[in-house]
Amino acid sequence: MNGAQRLLTTLTESGVDVCFANPGTSEMHFVAAMDDVPSMRGVLALFEGVATGAADGYGRVTGRPAAVLLHLGPGLGNGIANLHNARRAGSPVLTIVGEHATTHQQFDAPLQSDIAALAGNVSQFVRTTNHVADLEQDARDGVAAAIGPPSGVATLILPADVSWSEAGEGSAPSNSRTATSIDPADLKAVADALRRANHAVILVGGPATREDAVRHAVRCADAVGAQLLSETFPPFTRRGAGAVAVERVSYLGEFAASQFAEADLIVTVGAHVPATFFAYPNMASDLVPDGAALMELGVSTTDAQTTLAALAEELGAASTPGSIIEADQPEPPTGALTGASLAQAVAATLGEGTIVVDESNTGGIYLAGATKGAPSHDWLTLTGGAIGYGMPAAIGAAIGAPDQRVLCLESDGSAMYTIQALWTMARENLNITTVILSNRSYAILTMELARVGARSDAKAAQELLDLENPTLNFVSIAEGMGIAARRVETADGLVAALQDSVAKPGPMLIEAMLPKGLS
Amino acid sequence: MNGAQRLLTTLTESGVDVCFANPGTSEMHFVAAMDDVPSMRGVLALFEGVATGAADGYGRVTGRPAAVLLHLGPGLGNGIANLHNARRAGSPVLTIVGEHATTHQQFDAPLQSDIAALAGNVSQFVRTTNHVADLEQDARDGVAAAIGPPSGVATLILPADVSWSEAGEGSAPSNSRTATSIDPADLKAVADALRRANHAVILVGGPATREDAVRHAVRCADAVGAQLLSETFPPFTRRGAGAVAVERVSYLGEFAASQFAEADLIVTVGAHVPATFFAYPNMASDLVPDGAALMELGVSTTDAQTTLAALAEELGAASTPGSIIEADQPEPPTGALTGASLAQAVAATLGEGTIVVDESNTGGIYLAGATKGAPSHDWLTLTGGAIGYGMPAAIGAAIGAPDQRVLCLESDGSAMYTIQALWTMARENLNITTVILSNRSYAILTMELARVGARSDAKAAQELLDLENPTLNFVSIAEGMGIAARRVETADGLVAALQDSVAKPGPMLIEAMLPKGLS
Repeated sequence: MNGAQRLLTTLTESGVDVCFANPGTSEMHFVAAMDDVPSMRGVLALFEGVATGAADGYGRVTGRPAAVLLHLGPGLGNGIANLHNARRAGSPVLTIVGEHATTHQQFDAPLQSDIAALAGNVSQFVRTTNHVADLEQDARDGVAAAIGPPSGVATLILPADVSWSEAGEGSAPSNSRTATSIDPADLKAVADALRRANHAVILVGGPATREDAVRHAVRCADAVGAQLLSETFPPFTRRGAGAVAVERVSYLGEFAASQFAEADLIVTVGAHVPATFFAYPNMASDLVPDGAALMELGVSTTDAQTTLAALAEELGAASTPGSIIEADQPEPPTGALTGASLAQAVAATLGEGTIVVDESNTGGIYLAGATKGAPSHDWLTLTGGAIGYGMPAAIGAAIGAPDQRVLCLESDGSAMYTIQALWTMARENLNITTVILSNRSYAILTMELARVGARSDAKAAQELLDLENPTLNFVSIAEGMGIAARRVETADGLVAALQDSVAKPGPMLIEAMLPKGLS
Repeated sequence: MNGAQRLLTTLTESGVDVCFANPGTSEMHFVAAMDDVPSMRGVLALFEGVATGAADGYGRVTGRPAAVLLHLGPGLGNGIANLHNARRAGSPVLTIVGEHATTHQQFDAPLQSDIAALAGNVSQFVRTTNHVADLEQDARDGVAAAIGPPSGVATLILPADVSWSEAGEGSAPSNSRTATSIDPADLKAVADALRRANHAVILVGGPATREDAVRHAVRCADAVGAQLLSETFPPFTRRGAGAVAVERVSYLGEFAASQFAEADLIVTVGAHVPATFFAYPNMASDLVPDGAALMELGVSTTDAQTTLAALAEELGAASTPGSIIEADQPEPPTGALTGASLAQAVAATLGEGTIVVDESNTGGIYLAGATKGAPSHDWLTLTGGAIGYGMPAAIGAAIGAPDQRVLCLESDGSAMYTIQALWTMARENLNITTVILSNRSYAILTMELARVGARSDAKAAQELLDLENPTLNFVSIAEGMGIAARRVETADGLVAALQDSVAKPGPMLIEAMLPKGLS
């Protein structure tokens, strides 16, 4: 058994049985070993950002890491944007980056670069395996680091000669790390502060926004009359009928400031101290009102569900959340296709158990309201702000939850960063409906250009924000990658296309022609 | 005048007047300033790797840096693969990466990451401008660092508040760096060793492979009967009738070893010590024969042309190269489309002054031979091994040399990494003919799988190297991005399509259907 075979065996024994891959020469032994370890499912991506984004989506949906196989520094570079999103989501991901053979690195061959420096930017664990004897333990440590808590991106750098060297027999598995318990004194201090505050805000983020944890956060808020907010971009939330209602912090700092304006205490649970997404001239980045106290209920090394349940207990909360969202599905819309009617069409056709991957940006501002009472569904958002996550994450979601339909709501500008994802959807025949929200512009940047106080009417600037001349035809692009596709120009047309797309398995793309620019 | 306006003014004063851009919110003042500095040409890319690859191509063709505008760490991440190629080419490139405002960085907002760590991987100059008063000098230093010698990638990190702050008036331009002269003693030592050697190899790379320099290298080799070799992947070479013939080191180590086998002296000029591209089990990476002496004629801080001219002088070389390639253009081929007939079709239709951007990989192995006596043309290669450089570099070449036709020879697998380049070709109406060499596989990896000694017949491995199921349709993809496109299945068809593509300005894509797999 060579190193690559040992690595793949170790991964599958550790529960890692999907590998999103875009390999090169230094990974050829790993590729060859795929046939020796048939329980590992290899999924080819034609661009590395598709592979890393898929692992992000898979990790969010399943709570388990997939492996991602990348080729040297440039391959990792291409995958960094979506690893950045995975890092911000706290998604468990095991990145395996092939490196030149240990004996070859002295020659500074053309593809040589500092892989560890790149990996450090997005990983909470980076290790280079320079000896095949260390490979099994390094792999187990990498998987454990990815799972956490805290969950996140772990990167293993794998020289080619470690893959091809004889690895001998495997050793007994070591234990993975386990969650620690929250300190009872910390819990009591937070509970006391919540009871004393006139206007407390509980701000949940990351693992604390998942269904199993956030229900306890609602119990806590109910018990003390606190305001509950979620970070703007939660990784994976349950929504629709039967879920608890959690208001998200607005992306727009002006509105976000008003959400926190009354607070004299902010308790963060898995969330950052609240601040605006970007800075703007003459606007504060800090969203914490003057004089408000800040407390953190750390969940980075504990299980968020257990911790929030314990806080609810400490607060003497009722055993279930006080308010649950009731079913309220809108009628299918007709007439013109706008941001509002698009949202209504999505809500009217949303099937129970759908996983929505949302990268709709400005075109999707009506979605949250319209889908509030739709059948129970899950929702992924752009956690790290690096656009191009949607279609790749949809791949990972569909592979992680093969019995659920995935609805990918994708802006046209964002879609182009990882457009290669369509081919992988076709090859794997995944149950994904991709809706392209075509407004032929980087509409959010048109808005931001005005918000930063820059002139927004001038020609040269507008040309850098406009996606026309030529107009992208996503039907043609999708068909070129083997995906059935259809353009719709009315709300009725979108409803019909959405209904058709779920009527049979496999992928479909719908290009929804919205009015140009901001909705 | 704000910082962004000052920066753009400084850049155009320094001769940087093209900016390949994929901006975001933190770059909005830079974008707005484009209308205040109309001599700067903004070119929008829909993916950052297109922008960085375009700057690489532009730098190789013009010898001058373009600016590249990127959005924070993830934007730089997406651009890293082609900056890696630019670094290996020694292309002058000025990368400008927007950063959060200095006051905002403390909040670790979702898009925050360590930009300098990423930039350091590909840049020979990295500077963060934290005060607007430093911006003009930092920009001048960045441009000077990009121009060199040595030329390369310089990165300026630009916080948003530095862009929007009042910048005051400009200062007088400082001097940029100038080339140093080669030490006469070094020159004499190399000359003496060349005269004494039984079998000397002069190995040129980087700037020493450019037309103006390499002619002197041929004079040197002629004078002492040395063997002249070029590195496998030179950045920008003159070829065809009237050029000097320089043999490239083979990509395949087995052949490369035989090219160096007789050497008792290897003099590198702008080149690495010769080694294989990758390592392989039971094969040496080092291509230097046992006992051969190594000498380096440094050209990193000198002008390669001047240095090689001085060496020729020292050697008492004839004033012109002894052998010049004679015109020998093949007839247009007919019949089946194969690697050989494709090369013949390219050679038969190649117009004088064409710039060939070559990312043809295995499908293009007959090109060098077929085009040897074609009309004078320039040739760009994949210097850093990070695939996806071809179409972006073609954009930069076409913008840098608007009066020359660009022929981009692009493998299907490689094309998909930066397929968004087609849209920018259309928007800018660039004179680029893109030929997709479709063999429906990562053929080079099929070869490498066998070369590393791994089994190559098994199903799971083959699925990670195969580009069918579904088959990509590049005509459909190109049309979706606004490019006229045509599929050809015969050699005659390819000849006709190539002739048509040069008959009128603007871009065209030709999908050339080769036999599946290795040629």
